[in-house]
Amino acid sequence: MGYLTRRPVVCLVVSGPGLLHAIGGLANATVNCWPVICIGGSSDVDQEGRGAFQEWPQLESARSACKLVSRPTTLSAIPFHIEKAVRTALYGRPGAVYIDIPGNLVLSTEDEAKIPKLPKVSMIPVCIPPENIMKTAIDTIKDAKKPLVIVGKGAGWSERGPTMVQHFLTKSKLPWLASPGGKGIVSDNHERSVASARSLALREADLIILIGARFNWILHFGLPPRFQKDAKVVQIDIQPEEFHQNVQTTVPLMGDIGETLYAMTEHMKNWHYNVHGDWMKQLMENANKNKQVVEKMASDHKTPLNYYAAYHPIRDFISKNDVLIVNEGANTMDIGRTMMPSNLPRRRLDAGTFGTMGVGQGYALAAALYCRDHSPKTKVLCVQGDSAFGFSGMELETIARYKLPVVTVILNNSGIYRGMTPEDMKSVDGDPTLMYPVLSLSAECRYDQMAKALGGDGCMVRTVPEVCKIAAKKLSHTHFFADSRCPGEGVQEDGRSDGN
Amino acid sequence: MGYLTRRPVVCLVVSGPGLLHAIGGLANATVNCWPVICIGGSSDVDQEGRGAFQEWPQLESARSACKLVSRPTTLSAIPFHIEKAVRTALYGRPGAVYIDIPGNLVLSTEDEAKIPKLPKVSMIPVCIPPENIMKTAIDTIKDAKKPLVIVGKGAGWSERGPTMVQHFLTKSKLPWLASPGGKGIVSDNHERSVASARSLALREADLIILIGARFNWILHFGLPPRFQKDAKVVQIDIQPEEFHQNVQTTVPLMGDIGETLYAMTEHMKNWHYNVHGDWMKQLMENANKNKQVVEKMASDHKTPLNYYAAYHPIRDFISKNDVLIVNEGANTMDIGRTMMPSNLPRRRLDAGTFGTMGVGQGYALAAALYCRDHSPKTKVLCVQGDSAFGFSGMELETIARYKLPVVTVILNNSGIYRGMTPEDMKSVDGDPTLMYPVLSLSAECRYDQMAKALGGDGCMVRTVPEVCKIAAKKLSHTHFFADSRCPGEGVQEDGRSDGN
Amino acid sequence: MGYLTRRPVVCLVVSGPGLLHAIGGLANATVNCWPVICIGGSSDVDQEGRGAFQEWPQLESARSACKLVSRPTTLSAIPFHIEKAVRTALYGRPGAVYIDIPGNLVLSTEDEAKIPKLPKVSMIPVCIPPENIMKTAIDTIKDAKKPLVIVGKGAGWSERGPTMVQHFLTKSKLPWLASPGGKGIVSDNHERSVASARSLALREADLIILIGARFNWILHFGLPPRFQKDAKVVQIDIQPEEFHQNVQTTVPLMGDIGETLYAMTEHMKNWHYNVHGDWMKQLMENANKNKQVVEKMASDHKTPLNYYAAYHPIRDFISKNDVLIVNEGANTMDIGRTMMPSNLPRRRLDAGTFGTMGVGQGYALAAALYCRDHSPKTKVLCVQGDSAFGFSGMELETIARYKLPVVTVILNNSGIYRGMTPEDMKSVDGDPTLMYPVLSLSAECRYDQMAKALGGDGCMVRTVPEVCKIAAKKLSHTHFFADSRCPGEGVQEDGRSDGN
Amino acid sequence: MGYLTRRPVVCLVVSGPGLLHAIGGLANATVNCWPVICIGGSSDVDQEGRGAFQEWPQLESARSACKLVSRPTTLSAIPFHIEKAVRTALYGRPGAVYIDIPGNLVLSTEDEAKIPKLPKVSMIPVCIPPENIMKTAIDTIKDAKKPLVIVGKGAGWSERGPTMVQHFLTKSKLPWLASPGGKGIVSDNHERSVASARSLALREADLIILIGARFNWILHFGLPPRFQKDAKVVQIDIQPEEFHQNVQTTVPLMGDIGETLYAMTEHMKNWHYNVHGDWMKQLMENANKNKQVVEKMASDHKTPLNYYAAYHPIRDFISKNDVLIVNEGANTMDIGRTMMPSNLPRRRLDAGTFGTMGVGQGYALAAALYCRDHSPKTKVLCVQGDSAFGFSGMELETIARYKLPVVTVILNNSGIYRGMTPEDMKSVDGDPTLMYPVLSLSAECRYDQMAKALGGDGCMVRTVPEVCKIAAKKLSHTHFFADSRCPGEGVQEDGRSDGN
Repeated sequence: MGYLTRRPVVCLVVSGPGLLHAIGGLANATVNCWPVICIGGSSDVDQEGRGAFQEWPQLESARSACKLVSRPTTLSAIPFHIEKAVRTALYGRPGAVYIDIPGNLVLSTEDEAKIPKLPKVSMIPVCIPPENIMKTAIDTIKDAKKPLVIVGKGAGWSERGPTMVQHFLTKSKLPWLASPGGKGIVSDNHERSVASARSLALREADLIILIGARFNWILHFGLPPRFQKDAKVVQIDIQPEEFHQNVQTTVPLMGDIGETLYAMTEHMKNWHYNVHGDWMKQLMENANKNKQVVEKMASDHKTPLNYYAAYHPIRDFISKNDVLIVNEGANTMDIGRTMMPSNLPRRRLDAGTFGTMGVGQGYALAAALYCRDHSPKTKVLCVQGDSAFGFSGMELETIARYKLPVVTVILNNSGIYRGMTPEDMKSVDGDPTLMYPVLSLSAECRYDQMAKALGGDGCMVRTVPEVCKIAAKKLSHTHFFADSRCPGEGVQEDGRSDGN
Repeated sequence: MGYLTRRPVVCLVVSGPGLLHAIGGLANATVNCWPVICIGGSSDVDQEGRGAFQEWPQLESARSACKLVSRPTTLSAIPFHIEKAVRTALYGRPGAVYIDIPGNLVLSTEDEAKIPKLPKVSMIPVCIPPENIMKTAIDTIKDAKKPLVIVGKGAGWSERGPTMVQHFLTKSKLPWLASPGGKGIVSDNHERSVASARSLALREADLIILIGARFNWILHFGLPPRFQKDAKVVQIDIQPEEFHQNVQTTVPLMGDIGETLYAMTEHMKNWHYNVHGDWMKQLMENANKNKQVVEKMASDHKTPLNYYAAYHPIRDFISKNDVLIVNEGANTMDIGRTMMPSNLPRRRLDAGTFGTMGVGQGYALAAALYCRDHSPKTKVLCVQGDSAFGFSGMELETIARYKLPVVTVILNNSGIYRGMTPEDMKSVDGDPTLMYPVLSLSAECRYDQMAKALGGDGCMVRTVPEVCKIAAKKLSHTHFFADSRCPGEGVQEDGRSDGN
Repeated sequence: MGYLTRRPVVCLVVSGPGLLHAIGGLANATVNCWPVICIGGSSDVDQEGRGAFQEWPQLESARSACKLVSRPTTLSAIPFHIEKAVRTALYGRPGAVYIDIPGNLVLSTEDEAKIPKLPKVSMIPVCIPPENIMKTAIDTIKDAKKPLVIVGKGAGWSERGPTMVQHFLTKSKLPWLASPGGKGIVSDNHERSVASARSLALREADLIILIGARFNWILHFGLPPRFQKDAKVVQIDIQPEEFHQNVQTTVPLMGDIGETLYAMTEHMKNWHYNVHGDWMKQLMENANKNKQVVEKMASDHKTPLNYYAAYHPIRDFISKNDVLIVNEGANTMDIGRTMMPSNLPRRRLDAGTFGTMGVGQGYALAAALYCRDHSPKTKVLCVQGDSAFGFSGMELETIARYKLPVVTVILNNSGIYRGMTPEDMKSVDGDPTLMYPVLSLSAECRYDQMAKALGGDGCMVRTVPEVCKIAAKKLSHTHFFADSRCPGEGVQEDGRSDGN
Repeated sequence: MGYLTRRPVVCLVVSGPGLLHAIGGLANATVNCWPVICIGGSSDVDQEGRGAFQEWPQLESARSACKLVSRPTTLSAIPFHIEKAVRTALYGRPGAVYIDIPGNLVLSTEDEAKIPKLPKVSMIPVCIPPENIMKTAIDTIKDAKKPLVIVGKGAGWSERGPTMVQHFLTKSKLPWLASPGGKGIVSDNHERSVASARSLALREADLIILIGARFNWILHFGLPPRFQKDAKVVQIDIQPEEFHQNVQTTVPLMGDIGETLYAMTEHMKNWHYNVHGDWMKQLMENANKNKQVVEKMASDHKTPLNYYAAYHPIRDFISKNDVLIVNEGANTMDIGRTMMPSNLPRRRLDAGTFGTMGVGQGYALAAALYCRDHSPKTKVLCVQGDSAFGFSGMELETIARYKLPVVTVILNNSGIYRGMTPEDMKSVDGDPTLMYPVLSLSAECRYDQMAKALGGDGCMVRTVPEVCKIAAKKLSHTHFFADSRCPGEGVQEDGRSDGN
């Protein structure tokens, strides 16, 4: 939610186990560079060391997951700690902050006049590279034979980032693709998107223009064989230590992405990349070939449905609605990236840089609250594998209780990656429990009935006509059953290798 | 499960968020003094620093929750690390251990001859106090006018602990009560149990014989006004630093509880406490009075049922079956301690010393696996408040998938402590969401239907005849609706103040 | 040394206690924002957990003092870790990095072809604020009635920082002073330096232009009564989280100081502050008054000498030589800031932001190595109190062994702040040991003889003529004895309150 | 000092760097199992987060080196924290504790009546093994062909430990030797000491009776080739997790060493080991042979003196005086173990289990304060290598200031292990600085003159007659120059391999 609103969201937890169970989420935020503030109660300071209720060294436990941890010790110090928390969560590379409030503070009082009133935390300070460095970058871009723009999550964080990335791509006519977190900053339907030729594009580019993305596991560390050994790199980032990470940056452009691209585009003047050259042609051919494989799978309506066929009607739904997508799972997420186009910035959340599974229902809940307050026409669509849903499916109750506009679609293959058939289950030395925990869940759990039991609505569908009928009516707490058979290799490559 | 079997249980987690989400559980084990070994995968060591998949400083994050953290770096070192992990988890005060296995180890191979074969970890080394100190303890006991034995969780951990505590209480004829974690080491029905006179017993005792329990928040730190300022303390514990904690120990008996009580009872010879004195009479009268208040509540069948009435048929069921109880919630746990007698050692699990909520379904799952392998006639009964169930209710699916013999009873008051009535919900400034998150859940969630949807069975009951009918038939995934009205003060006192 | 060279210096330590004793220094570097890389040996990884020689969790212990800690596990990974260490230590806000090298790596070998050759870490990426924000800053400066520039240590770190600060001050004609760490970036003799009117300047300024300094304890947190409550703040910093710290920043200018001031001065065009107004007059009068008090003290030649008189000949020496000053102590440092003018950037080191005592001899050693290699005409002068010298006086042997050009002057008042007279020593209940450890050292230790014993030279002087004679001859390992009587209050104020 | 007095000693440090520089010492104490309490000031809690003077997360930094860290937040909580600190430092396995006192507490006041008065921390609770386990141990000892007793530091910590170890060795007639830390618990001159046959004894023993020692690096992890693969182990220790560490314990005897050996010896009745068998004969022959090699070296008076010759007169001095020895260095310590016999418990301190260099002068200071208060006739003799002395030689001033009875002997070989000759220094590529820092110090530093300069006395000696003359007169701040040539291999083996 902090990423969606560009202000830190606050998470309240109780002491001890409450805080400890939040650390995974705080780490997830920090690794994703999202602002969040966690406020935790803690045992009374005068009981420390005595075996107090849920006594724990909470600051220390939270520290490695946070940019800042702090504990006010008087009521009048709280505004300072909150101000610093908000500022630290937002400024520079965003991340998590933890504030600890001992129980004795909760119950104490103070004369209101003694509580300082601090001003609201100001806009994030921004900067741009010096002019000469931007000009070097432009020269480097002009010299490239096979340039490729990669748009990352950071471009969506910058205030004018999405607008300026679009502006830059329109003017420069460069081929581009997005990291998973960068999807939607520019529409997947953009004419020079080469997402469907991802493997080829990465492998052959002689220049990568990296905009708010990191050469981490998601981008194969920027290293061969997935990238050219000598590919040049023009990189825009707000975090100076991120330049040269894993790969030498040819031109480091330290600055706010929106402001930097605005200035860059000005300096670029009327230059644009030659869209009629071999590189563009090669990319487009490869993209089209891969798209055809996908479409063939999507039109195969044999049951149990394959993932692409199951996703097909969802894709239609998305194309006609303002949808914020939450997508999580193994195959469900890999293929969902291909089958669920993103057309608007910050309208897609998945397992993210930290690969955290089980976030789907929580993200859907937060996204729905965000939409309620900031974008009432946007619908939240959460598409999960059954295993991912199993982490936090109970949140359906919360969603129902608050009457939030969330549609959850579960692609149920009875487990992880491919689940198990009833035959598999019997065959493991006759002991079905041996493999269960690793790969499998119960076949055909009735998640639709569970949704009803918890106050929502649901239905189970197994065929394309059933899916279409439901989708036409309303996409509610729906439950699909998709085949686990692996789709064709070429497609898989450009689906799965996209990483998270 | 480590506590039930007296061998460390192993928990496997994936890297990054996997390990981070386990830390709450590891801390819970360490605070409860239970042995557990967590083995976590981690990113390949040669990708450290590069932004590897789920890269995280896992040893550091786990350290504060563990007695030991370690990471083998070669395959042949693994046996040493495992042996040390088992030994450390078990020996001395038990607790959690974390072992980190980098991904590159998982995929490497080694000549089997180079892998050392280490012997199984031996029995826990035990010790007893020197004879003269035990004799001083006995003299102190003989001198007391108002002695009280408190039996804690540690007495259940010692191999001969339960047997010897029973032997000691039988021979000494001392009045006693259990800490919540110590319930069942001696049967709640034991003739000199003064659990129902808990407040009085603590407040007036001039000598506390503390056996494997700690003067922490559960025992009000051993301090006035809940205890006599000058009460003497004879304490048996295996952890030397625990003596004198919060309260001066008059006679510290460092040793294994079973072995120490065996020797103590030998030295005590034929002495026993005078059961006809004023102290015993005073305790018994108070206990009987409190029991009557409880029974009156339990026989009030007005709907919505109060907690005592809802618990009444459960109590009957327990009295006729070998049951391992999991009990969790706020009122549900406080009153459950009174209404669900424990008759066997290590047959009851609750939120424990760390007050961890949401453990119920996980405990039930572990307990059922324990019973399957070690005690096939024992049934697992998990009684939770609806809020507690909400933390991890999805585990019903796991329980159903493994066909484990668990009966879950949910006492549903639509929230925490007292939930909210529909009127309350309307009255908060007309905005029902304002109070929701703090105290309330959806009224009348159909947990029975959820159980069915996930592969189990369930029913909802609202009246005593309905409850009895179901209980008679089978205690399955049952769903009670209990009133939230607070029961009488005197009872509440001895229910709630019992702590966790 | 990292600060002096603008490249990280490397510190090698042995395992266990070796690394633990380096943590204070690493923390000192990080708090001072200085780049340093510490490389520590550690026990063989296959002996971890076994009780290896000096086994210790070194990464964890170093983490809180460092921007980055890392441990290569193969020889071929070392270049990556070193490259990242250098980059992290330098880029953004500089600081300390720790790299751990297990003993088994030290003794292993690898085919050289498998060791990657990484390029040298590039120049630090720089940025500047967007033009409109700089213009707002200039308007704010123009509007101020009582502006004050504060130049901090960060201005000396920026490559073109000192040149551009000088340029900005020359063109803008604004009154200015330096933080202790910022001394010398502009010469203390600069005509509009108001260092001698520091208290007044801070207290009455309506605009602070904060350049690479922090509103921490050294600047009294920027708060009343030392500052105007409503003073505006124009701040240049490279660390976005530093804006608004303790005090609201009116105009945050995120960027490299040199590049930003260059652009700012361009935008400022021909504007300059009116040096004939009341504010300037008020400041200059106050500065002159304070200088006279100092000069009066400095010309008081009564023995034992007061600090000012002892410093007097040193000041003359400095004015005629290219001197890198190391200054440490309590009064010795407070008064040394006033009495030892700084005329060149990065030519002065003191206890710094972290207030670390005992750094003097180590700094002198590093400074002398720096001068040997980078600035052969510069002399190193280390002026310490006797207590400060006592922390690490043995380094005189190292300095003598390497024949390094360091002159150490010890202002010996036999203790801290004021030491003790022989009468004081007798008077504490007749037990002289009672107060000793806190405030006093042995009177008249012969540090001059110690210097000779360890291979250097030294002399002891007690009067101004003696001092002058020695200073005229050579400033070697000299030993002054200065009075401990406190100098006049007004002067003290502007000496001591300058902080460290 | 905590080890010498068996009560925790207190170390006071200032905030920030003060505490950070103490961590090495705290770790040293914890690794050595010695009780110490460090009390550190810290910045005012209401300035936390603001950039306070020496602000630092001190509890976190101290935690890994301590058994307990804690911070009182009110004056009335201080007694509880101190009581717990003392108890934790002492009870169980002793170690370090850190208490943090924020500056605001230092300056606040409280009504004395509100400060609780807690009783003094009681004697350490002790325990012994159950009788049947002790009997099994005795049977195991009786069955051994080649038994060996190893006496460790823990035996000196137990109150009756030294007395009972002596009693046990006298009655059992078993051959024994001490770990470095266990030297003196039984006199090195004891008739069945086989210290001079250490390598043989370890290598061939079929049973190790390990008394308060650990199978860590000092004892070669208890593993082949230094030990028999199948050697049995009877181990007495107070820390249960220490059993089976690295080597399977055949009979773990958990208990206080003094009390356990007392009971064991009772149960042993009149049995004793056959001192006329082959094992004893073999050991004694080997011991005698090694002693002769040592004596030959000791009587070689060529200058520069070899270590053994330099130690020779010291040995004579020790034999005639009650001396507390501090011994530190590389060869100086290795050979010092052989050449300086220990005859009384807790009368010898060296670099210890953590191998911490530079502790000598601090230990000497603490030892002298201990002797002043508890054992006025004992002299403190500190024998160090010149490199070891260089770490903290300035403490000579402290020793002189307090007029403490410490004699420091420096065996000066101009560096580490063997130092460098003037020829060596010239030969390293013509650049003498290349090797300097690693192995060498200035040749012939006049430590004697340094001692005089700092208020003590000193002399330098180079020949045996000079040494004897000085030793006869007084062993004061003396300065020997010893040869660096390595002595004979056999001797070296049993000197150096003894570890620290």
